[in-house]
Amino acid sequence: MDFSGSHILSIDQFDHSDIDTLFSVAESLEPYSLRKKVTRVLEGAILGNMFFEPSTRTRISFGAAFNLLGGAVRETTEVKSSSLTKGESLMDTAQVLSGYSDIIVMRHPEEGSVESFSQASRVPVINGGDGSNEHPTQALLDLYTIKKELEANHKTIQGLRIALVGDLKFGRAVHSLSKVLCLYKDVTINLISPRKLRLPDSYLRLLTESGVNINEFENIEEGIIEVDIIYMTRIQEERFKNKSDAKKYRGLLRLNEKIYTANCEPNTVIMHPLPRDSRQGANELDSDLYKNPNLAIFRQADNGIVIRMALFALVLGVVEQIGKTSREVNWHTSKRH
Amino acid sequence: MDFSGSHILSIDQFDHSDIDTLFSVAESLEPYSLRKKVTRVLEGAILGNMFFEPSTRTRISFGAAFNLLGGAVRETTEVKSSSLTKGESLMDTAQVLSGYSDIIVMRHPEEGSVESFSQASRVPVINGGDGSNEHPTQALLDLYTIKKELEANHKTIQGLRIALVGDLKFGRAVHSLSKVLCLYKDVTINLISPRKLRLPDSYLRLLTESGVNINEFENIEEGIIEVDIIYMTRIQEERFKNKSDAKKYRGLLRLNEKIYTANCEPNTVIMHPLPRDSRQGANELDSDLYKNPNLAIFRQADNGIVIRMALFALVLGVVEQIGKTSREVNWHTSKRH
Amino acid sequence: MDFSGSHILSIDQFDHSDIDTLFSVAESLEPYSLRKKVTRVLEGAILGNMFFEPSTRTRISFGAAFNLLGGAVRETTEVKSSSLTKGESLMDTAQVLSGYSDIIVMRHPEEGSVESFSQASRVPVINGGDGSNEHPTQALLDLYTIKKELEANHKTIQGLRIALVGDLKFGRAVHSLSKVLCLYKDVTINLISPRKLRLPDSYLRLLTESGVNINEFENIEEGIIEVDIIYMTRIQEERFKNKSDAKKYRGLLRLNEKIYTANCEPNTVIMHPLPRDSRQGANELDSDLYKNPNLAIFRQADNGIVIRMALFALVLGVVEQIGKTSREVNWHTSKRH
Repeated sequence: MDFSGSHILSIDQFDHSDIDTLFSVAESLEPYSLRKKVTRVLEGAILGNMFFEPSTRTRISFGAAFNLLGGAVRETTEVKSSSLTKGESLMDTAQVLSGYSDIIVMRHPEEGSVESFSQASRVPVINGGDGSNEHPTQALLDLYTIKKELEANHKTIQGLRIALVGDLKFGRAVHSLSKVLCLYKDVTINLISPRKLRLPDSYLRLLTESGVNINEFENIEEGIIEVDIIYMTRIQEERFKNKSDAKKYRGLLRLNEKIYTANCEPNTVIMHPLPRDSRQGANELDSDLYKNPNLAIFRQADNGIVIRMALFALVLGVVEQIGKTSREVNWHTSKRH
Repeated sequence: MDFSGSHILSIDQFDHSDIDTLFSVAESLEPYSLRKKVTRVLEGAILGNMFFEPSTRTRISFGAAFNLLGGAVRETTEVKSSSLTKGESLMDTAQVLSGYSDIIVMRHPEEGSVESFSQASRVPVINGGDGSNEHPTQALLDLYTIKKELEANHKTIQGLRIALVGDLKFGRAVHSLSKVLCLYKDVTINLISPRKLRLPDSYLRLLTESGVNINEFENIEEGIIEVDIIYMTRIQEERFKNKSDAKKYRGLLRLNEKIYTANCEPNTVIMHPLPRDSRQGANELDSDLYKNPNLAIFRQADNGIVIRMALFALVLGVVEQIGKTSREVNWHTSKRH
Repeated sequence: MDFSGSHILSIDQFDHSDIDTLFSVAESLEPYSLRKKVTRVLEGAILGNMFFEPSTRTRISFGAAFNLLGGAVRETTEVKSSSLTKGESLMDTAQVLSGYSDIIVMRHPEEGSVESFSQASRVPVINGGDGSNEHPTQALLDLYTIKKELEANHKTIQGLRIALVGDLKFGRAVHSLSKVLCLYKDVTINLISPRKLRLPDSYLRLLTESGVNINEFENIEEGIIEVDIIYMTRIQEERFKNKSDAKKYRGLLRLNEKIYTANCEPNTVIMHPLPRDSRQGANELDSDLYKNPNLAIFRQADNGIVIRMALFALVLGVVEQIGKTSREVNWHTSKRH
């Protein structure tokens, strides 16, 4: 794909070489996210950070990534405060808002809305999540995290063995990650979920056709033996029609230090797209793993910054210029992963 | 008027020469809004973008205009989150907030509130809309659009024939536009509205006294013959005391490609202050006109940026300095109207 | 205290010399807050302005202070839009959000929450108010105002006579100010409140043990004789379990021009943490004092900017560099206190 000027709507747009390009730019941006260097390459540019559904962390991650490149951010956070409530079409909103910025990130509760919006937009649009449909930057930062964590253990994505655990039916992050793993060879996926929250057949078919080895489990202890990475997810309670159905699955699949130690190979990496549900009863990923160095969940969140910076830099075509405007950070900082 | 340091509260402040000044600055700023050039003239300045009533597009338009001049924006979006709910007077709020910024844009649901606020403010205040009273930048961007669109057709505002269509009783945009058209000679206005939503007598008197030619219609087909510009508006449902009254007028006055083609002179320009109500039943301006090159509604929205940039530059007295700090845009951009 | 890299959680962290350091930096920053000079020392840095409880003025004051040092601001304003509602722990939120910024300001309705948050944060955290517990920057700006106002009258904090008036039971500002006054010698405090809204015993003990002279009054006229400063506060209605209890105290303790003139020494300074309740019935500080030059309430609010700028500059270790990047303001400004 030619990133420059493109909309980033779906993980399906990315082939192997696109991912290599993106990850290589992301890696080169780590000194900026770690506050060792400052760049002002996008000084004067404006991001329209349009969140028509609440999501503090994703919104701030995109905004901070744009700020780290030197750009300014204009934002909206609520569907209520939008002209949509006065009957305006998404196309009109796109036409108008795209006159106010150089690039737009959009999150919206409706599936397909971001793509419709992008068709009328006069600037590139990045999908920040459209309902249960797509959230491509999550999949990209997950894959980037897998790559980085494996590298630290002298492994590669080729040959990866990963356990996907929890609500595999509604979990958007798991769906997108499955798709992107199809691009790699020799991948084994252990699917661990309650029977009624299995990965949908369409994804199963896709994985099988792409040569991914699939094993299914209902029991976490069995499924996490002999994997490199455990990818935990929470029950997506807000996607259940019947709230009491959702409750049945709370706390069913849990990872804690004891289960980890008893079953996992050394250095098995623990991931989670966050937020994790730390309320008693849920607690799918126990806080007793907080000090475990293989807990990669906050490194994973941090990786969202460099992935989003890399996308902005590629879509706005400024990758080559970043080094030229680089300078040292002049304030106190002890930032680390 | 001496713009420098002035509050911009009402369209009544502007005489013919003020408008000429503003429009000439706005035109000089087009390369910046079209992302051909970057200026940092207001780097270090802060806009207090105080929206005590929701309005995503107006808020973002003001904020983006300030960012485009290099300034930073601090914002509030909800009356709930304000000290006003703890019994604070507008004068106190103004005293305090004006200590935090170099210029304030304020929108507030109460008529006259922005003027009261400005009296206690220690920095210039721009009215971003106070209830059904004033919204001067809307009138200015409308007039600027009329001028630009007419120029493209080799015409001038002097001699203008315009149809104002829809809810002329409650439509604040129409009221302010009427006022400012009084400054020009040889203007003809066709007022097209349901009988109960006629333009209020006070405005009719003002127009007549200023020598504007007035014709009234209830039927859109008759009123749009022989005009240069059709200015459509939506029914202001939120201003009706009785919601079911508002519904009676939904969809009564509509413009679509068929009506346009059957009745209008070639190149008759179509404007709308937006948002337009695209729900079935309302749909005052049909989307089948989307490809009509005379549909100026998005150029009109875009013009809000340069008009607001021009106001900021004039009120903060930096017009002369913009050229000096100008540089080329260094990122990928294909921005156009 | 070594400010560099420290969390600022409580007024208890500050000893006499810390306050001297802070106030000296604050004073050096006045040309920047008064818009005579611009600094870009924190260009490239990001403030995470995390308000999990509404507070327009405190939020904007912190944000503007950071902008005035050249930094960018990412913000959240509502607990609803946070992952906290999906069961995320404060520790997780802190881990994630601290990956997005160089420093965090946090306000949260729960007592102790900001300290918990700071323990997991990877960047310095400033307490912007945690329930009825702490709001250290308010106490610091109050003390800074006392110092500046006394200096104008050729007095010092040593020897200060101050009346604290109103809801001394629930008033967080009064509690913190009491604590910090314990650091100074020869201080006399007149406590003026309804009997049921007296200063809690713990604070009374603290003051007495520190050698502060305490006098208690229920009547404002008696208590404001022979003081240098009157510190008015509103009834904290939102802290009462029983709303009708709160109403009993509305309007009981009031200061107006007549009471002031009849009882006060010349140049007695009037302070208030704001917002003041200007509704009839409450009106603890009458607007007929608006023109009284000893009304320091808006200078007090303004001082919040330099105090917050000074804290940011000290915690991020850039005080020495500010002068070097300084330049003149190039826009129209007539800013004054």
